[in-house]
Amino acid sequence: MLAEIITIGDEILIGQIVDTNSAWMAQELNKIGIFVTQISSVSDKKQNILKALDEARSRATIVLMTGGLGPTRDDITKTTLCEYFGTSLVFNPEVFEDVTAMFARYGKTVNEINKLQAHIPSNSTALRNKQGTAPGMWFEDKGTVFISMPGVPYEMKGIMESEVLPRLKKQFKLPHILHRTILTQGIGESDLAEKISAWEDSLAAYSISLAYLPSPYKVRLRMTLSGPDLSLLQKHLAEKEAELRKLIAPYIFGADEEKLEEIVGTELRRRGEKLGLAESCTGGYISHLITRVPGSSDYYEGSVITYSYEQKENLLGVKKQTLEQFGAVSKEVVEEMALGALSRLKVNHSIAVSGIAGPSGGTPEKPVGTVWIAVASGGAVQSRKFQFGHNRERNIEVSAEAALNMLRKILIPAEQHV
Amino acid sequence: MLAEIITIGDEILIGQIVDTNSAWMAQELNKIGIFVTQISSVSDKKQNILKALDEARSRATIVLMTGGLGPTRDDITKTTLCEYFGTSLVFNPEVFEDVTAMFARYGKTVNEINKLQAHIPSNSTALRNKQGTAPGMWFEDKGTVFISMPGVPYEMKGIMESEVLPRLKKQFKLPHILHRTILTQGIGESDLAEKISAWEDSLAAYSISLAYLPSPYKVRLRMTLSGPDLSLLQKHLAEKEAELRKLIAPYIFGADEEKLEEIVGTELRRRGEKLGLAESCTGGYISHLITRVPGSSDYYEGSVITYSYEQKENLLGVKKQTLEQFGAVSKEVVEEMALGALSRLKVNHSIAVSGIAGPSGGTPEKPVGTVWIAVASGGAVQSRKFQFGHNRERNIEVSAEAALNMLRKILIPAEQHV
Repeated sequence: MLAEIITIGDEILIGQIVDTNSAWMAQELNKIGIFVTQISSVSDKKQNILKALDEARSRATIVLMTGGLGPTRDDITKTTLCEYFGTSLVFNPEVFEDVTAMFARYGKTVNEINKLQAHIPSNSTALRNKQGTAPGMWFEDKGTVFISMPGVPYEMKGIMESEVLPRLKKQFKLPHILHRTILTQGIGESDLAEKISAWEDSLAAYSISLAYLPSPYKVRLRMTLSGPDLSLLQKHLAEKEAELRKLIAPYIFGADEEKLEEIVGTELRRRGEKLGLAESCTGGYISHLITRVPGSSDYYEGSVITYSYEQKENLLGVKKQTLEQFGAVSKEVVEEMALGALSRLKVNHSIAVSGIAGPSGGTPEKPVGTVWIAVASGGAVQSRKFQFGHNRERNIEVSAEAALNMLRKILIPAEQHV
Repeated sequence: MLAEIITIGDEILIGQIVDTNSAWMAQELNKIGIFVTQISSVSDKKQNILKALDEARSRATIVLMTGGLGPTRDDITKTTLCEYFGTSLVFNPEVFEDVTAMFARYGKTVNEINKLQAHIPSNSTALRNKQGTAPGMWFEDKGTVFISMPGVPYEMKGIMESEVLPRLKKQFKLPHILHRTILTQGIGESDLAEKISAWEDSLAAYSISLAYLPSPYKVRLRMTLSGPDLSLLQKHLAEKEAELRKLIAPYIFGADEEKLEEIVGTELRRRGEKLGLAESCTGGYISHLITRVPGSSDYYEGSVITYSYEQKENLLGVKKQTLEQFGAVSKEVVEEMALGALSRLKVNHSIAVSGIAGPSGGTPEKPVGTVWIAVASGGAVQSRKFQFGHNRERNIEVSAEAALNMLRKILIPAEQHV
């Protein structure tokens, strides 16, 4: 079953917002056996929307739209859909009740502009929006299903989960789609391709497609297959995954959507051990990754972020002499930072990072992108120097990945994660 | 001048990656007077790419593609472009030199797969990629310019900046496009629409279009106009902006791409004052926002992140009795955290945040989304309670916005930012 996504609104076309909705929608559709053939972002001009609708229905049975449903004048999706289907807006009392209740919850009364949100095309079914005032809409027209939803991500997600996905599952007989992604670190895309070339050749016989997805500091390998017989698909995928794991065992750190901070967190929880951090150039980003995970308070105690010599002495007990002799970006200082975090936060493991994120601050001996990372576990401390690039945001991200990976290798020795 | 963007690769269509490239490209194209009419994400199947190329050229003069240029088998953009133009791949010695040099820098030698990257369609001009091994390509065909670039964001950005944008400016006579975005906080989209309704009516006479861009905790208002006479456009925009500012002065916190952390940082630098943080539920996210800004070490000293009662006592000097009597999420504790950060980090200003990000940890008195924020400046401390929603990531983001905004209001009194 094929679907297309159309996002409506100039804000995406002028680059003012990044379209995160489509990726989320595509993932959810995939899980129930619907493939997305194309994602199109069009401006909120009537002619462009009409043309996009025609093109989308020529390729897919399900057309999902987001955006252009707000209460303001630049929001024209509803009137355009009326024109497309030759219908008109009608007042929907249930939607009006939802809108009124939503406003009441915030102690507000409905104004004239909000009242318009309770009007929907006469040929549509309203899809309740529990998070906002613009309802979703479901249309059926000559064998194609059209779904319109607000562009605000959490409103769209609410409508997808409670209304759209259940209705799609009910309406269509869907095949099974399986994806399996193996996550690797420490090997480049082309070296990986050489190592698994013969295995890659063998995938065709199983109709498994393979994609290489490189991102900073890692390459993900995604296998995809689909068909009516779920257990057969699972058997083929498991077989091929086992072969792949043998070929590249030392580089694999996880699978599918697993994140390093989750893998590390799960192991810490299992052990009943605590983690603390001492961040300098990463400026809180590693702590953010760790605490973004629900339940991280089970194993995460806290962090000290030190952006000056004084704070490294003051909060972590790094020796003034070490700082003066070796500089903040050095093996000696990062190890003292890790040990300082370990004792001051009273934790079992600590990570310390000190580097030059850029764009300024580099020297010939320590250019921008030089990063020292230390991990202290119990009494022992390990450290390693990395040389990353020139981009500040990327250096912060890549340093965080490298730091979490160092901790992972200590927590989970190689023989365990093969 | 109109352009279209085509992103090629299944990873976007199955939702495995979010397309951040298109937003960046659209912004850069806009700055030089090129409007993006549509962004399409298509799978890496030949027929889909060919169809997308035909559709795009029917609407736009410039077609930019990203993705599908890697060294592996799922990358078919180059061969597909050869078929589209009826040409074939030829070896390009300059590209091969770049690839070899890139590998040498990392102490590696070129393998057979990498060598293929030095082959490009015979009707294309190579666009040098200084960050990776896949070159960009420039095609001209019956009045349309086609540009193909790698999908890795920093490689694409490098090629856009050094090759694509300069060439486009040289080749086309481009109109001026002006955008001006006014950033507001503390007022909803529909209340804003009511307040500025008459002003909005007046925009048509100047051919200025207006868009409302709501995002968590703020609404951005974007005005857009274009034409050949830059100074006239600037005059009109300045006039209308001044009128708008008078109507909604108390809600405005900045303009265009300004971020709260930058506004706050600029003011701290101007004053020569220092900032420190005590984070609990935001877990380092505010520190990350602040340190993501280049040069933030001028005014940012450090943070203490405390995820337990013990660490709040240990690192911030919060009294055990205060924690036991009022709980960690309370006015009393968050104020002690802010004052603790102020004295221990020896800074002029501090922000402290303590709340229940969720999904668990809520109680009837303090449900998920309850957040206390305090700002201490000199001897004085202000605090405020917020009630946000149920989503952990959103609560972290919104708390950070609210905290930075509290500091902004203290640093920059209202009469100054009107």
